[in-house]
Amino acid sequence: MNDTASDEEERITLTHGTGGQATRDLVSETLTAGFEDAGDALVGLADFDDGAVLPVGDKKLVVTTDTHVVQPPFFPGGDIGRLAVSGTVNDLAVMGATEVRGLTSGVVVEANYPREKLERIADSMAEACREADAPVVSGDTKVMGNGELDGITINTAGVGVAEHVTPDSDLSPQDVIIVTDTIGEHGIALLAEREGIDFEADLESDVQPVNDLLAAVLEVGGEAVTAMKDPTRTGLAGALNEMARKSEVGIEVTDERVPVTGDVTGAGELLGLDPYQIANEGVAILGVEPTAAEPVLAALRDHPKGENAAAIGKAIDDHHGRVVLDTGIGNRYMREPSKEAVPRIC
Amino acid sequence: MNDTASDEEERITLTHGTGGQATRDLVSETLTAGFEDAGDALVGLADFDDGAVLPVGDKKLVVTTDTHVVQPPFFPGGDIGRLAVSGTVNDLAVMGATEVRGLTSGVVVEANYPREKLERIADSMAEACREADAPVVSGDTKVMGNGELDGITINTAGVGVAEHVTPDSDLSPQDVIIVTDTIGEHGIALLAEREGIDFEADLESDVQPVNDLLAAVLEVGGEAVTAMKDPTRTGLAGALNEMARKSEVGIEVTDERVPVTGDVTGAGELLGLDPYQIANEGVAILGVEPTAAEPVLAALRDHPKGENAAAIGKAIDDHHGRVVLDTGIGNRYMREPSKEAVPRIC
Ligand SMILES: Nc1ncnc2c1ncn2[C@@H]1O[C@H](COP(=O)(O)OP(=O)(O)OP(=O)(O)O)[C@@H](O)[C@H]1O
Ligand SMILES: Nc1ncnc2c1ncn2[C@@H]1O[C@H](COP(=O)(O)OP(=O)(O)OP(=O)(O)O)[C@@H](O)[C@H]1O
Ligand SMILES: [Mg+2]
Ligand SMILES: [Mg+2]
Ligand SMILES: [Mg+2]
Ligand SMILES: [Mg+2]
Ligand SMILES: [Mg+2]
Ligand SMILES: [Mg+2]
Repeated sequence: MNDTASDEEERITLTHGTGGQATRDLVSETLTAGFEDAGDALVGLADFDDGAVLPVGDKKLVVTTDTHVVQPPFFPGGDIGRLAVSGTVNDLAVMGATEVRGLTSGVVVEANYPREKLERIADSMAEACREADAPVVSGDTKVMGNGELDGITINTAGVGVAEHVTPDSDLSPQDVIIVTDTIGEHGIALLAEREGIDFEADLESDVQPVNDLLAAVLEVGGEAVTAMKDPTRTGLAGALNEMARKSEVGIEVTDERVPVTGDVTGAGELLGLDPYQIANEGVAILGVEPTAAEPVLAALRDHPKGENAAAIGKAIDDHHGRVVLDTGIGNRYMREPSKEAVPRIC
Repeated sequence: MNDTASDEEERITLTHGTGGQATRDLVSETLTAGFEDAGDALVGLADFDDGAVLPVGDKKLVVTTDTHVVQPPFFPGGDIGRLAVSGTVNDLAVMGATEVRGLTSGVVVEANYPREKLERIADSMAEACREADAPVVSGDTKVMGNGELDGITINTAGVGVAEHVTPDSDLSPQDVIIVTDTIGEHGIALLAEREGIDFEADLESDVQPVNDLLAAVLEVGGEAVTAMKDPTRTGLAGALNEMARKSEVGIEVTDERVPVTGDVTGAGELLGLDPYQIANEGVAILGVEPTAAEPVLAALRDHPKGENAAAIGKAIDDHHGRVVLDTGIGNRYMREPSKEAVPRIC
């Protein structure tokens, strides 16, 4: 093996971590190529969904994990602790497990890290746990040498029980596509902070657990909620493309219906970032059968976390695997981000 | 907050990561101080055990996590991939969940890492998964910038179902203490490798999943197996002290009965390391009611991973919370490692 090989193909790049096609290829071709899926998984490794679903007795157990490496760890609207809890709670919730049974917390911290910062992060985790009614039940703590890790990383895995599983692959033509909140806030706020730009705008991450909101959705929507996904690293565009591809439908989205704040649009323009292509950490995308769309929207808007919810389009039996954006003056494909996606955003 | 504070107490140190008292203090005083335990946990955060136990339907679900930061990631006898699977499988198994339902894999890798190394690590995970009959069901992949992470870390969380839960706190006086294999191999092999010393001895990590071995133990021992623990970061001494403390018994160990290879003893002497105080990654400690000790030992020795199993002592109703070592010429307390413990050993 040659550590000084110059061939870029042989090296991991930041693009491998952006959650899009490069990540998927790395996962399927390298990281899991030799893995055997659980024989009895209802949703398993091969499904590439937000979590796995395993039968445990007569229950459907959802299992998921995310490691959080966000930079900076404290950002407007949240920090790595709130993110670590929210990210995993939301992956469980979009699989249908809005009731969290337990989280694990794997903290890795650099020697010389200020204990006071660790305290703030832990407090923030505790607060998000209360908000999500999600207890941390087990954990692990490792310290790496000074200079061996840039600060702190936190892995959270989670388990929950789903009555009705909502994979990202079960859209049918005519299903209404709903987003539960305004788009782009986490990514734009984080990037603005990182660039050190003061926009005189109120840019804050949307990072929050939305399992309570999705519980309200499932309560009124039930089986008519056909698919859910959280639009994280690859943004709205990435999540919609993945839902379209896996469900073997097209998705039609009307640009002007997508809720985005003026501040996010403005900052996005100045930063050269598309709010559709950047991470959200407190939003879910739903596919809902047409008859249930109105009651689900009403339930969402009744909830403090769903006031800005909107039906942005629908699944169609055309343009399979693609997302068609109606821009008002014509159509274009909404593509998932590729190389432009930014590292350490979550 | 003062980033240049010189007061050592305010900074995280390598000692906080060695798994002993400093780690426990950091976890309870800082990392989980504000956490609320799961209301229905059978074994929860407060128990500080190898994993948590949660009721799911009529099953007992065991949940655990470990992040692996071992340095070097490839070492004699294994690598970080094999370690990541074995470590979590073993934490499930010593809680009684010898049947693994699913693992998660959270990989964080440094940009510019050779893909070929990642491939070898993934292959090694796959092999350990097959060995443990433990499928990875979900995962996550992040890339940090070059210089932001020293290579690779892997978090594995795991879930399994236990019939009979075997916490580390249920020893009763007279219970026989059994170790399933020779002691000290992982830590001594790793440190020898790190020091670059060639001992002309066969020093290899013992890293392996032992859930199959412990299934055989539970098969013959059943409820008479009162306690199990894997002696990882803090070694045999740390694990025994923790079992004694939590069970409110003393533990009496006869030095010459503890299986240690001559190579490990010799290398330990040269390295200035006590094999009792260093990590094992393929060994379990059992507490067994006296009547079941012989059948359990027989079952262990019948198994390729248990050939060197030995009864090394017993729980006593004296010296509560302490481990008394009979050295042949008298007694001394076997203390758990404190500051001497080495970083990034697992
Ligand atoms: N190292 C890995 N091992 C096994 N599976 C992996 C690994 N990395 C990712 N996966 C799988 O790939 C799929 C996509 O992972 P990804 O992390 O993008 O999903 P996500 O957690 O929903 O998104 P995000 O991480 O942006 O929040 C998931 O099904 C996940 O289980
Ligand atoms: N960051 C954390 N948050 C919550 N609980 C934690 C955290 N770190 C450790 N714990 C808890 O502290 C206890 C001891 O953890 P530790 O990691 O030492 O156990 P282990 O995994 O059995 O040992 P090792 O990590 O050496 O393999 C466990 O009950 C664990 O759940
Ligand atoms: Mg997701
Ligand atoms: Mg996620
Ligand atoms: Mg641990
Ligand atoms: Mg353990
Ligand atoms: Mg462990
Ligand atoms: Mg993920």
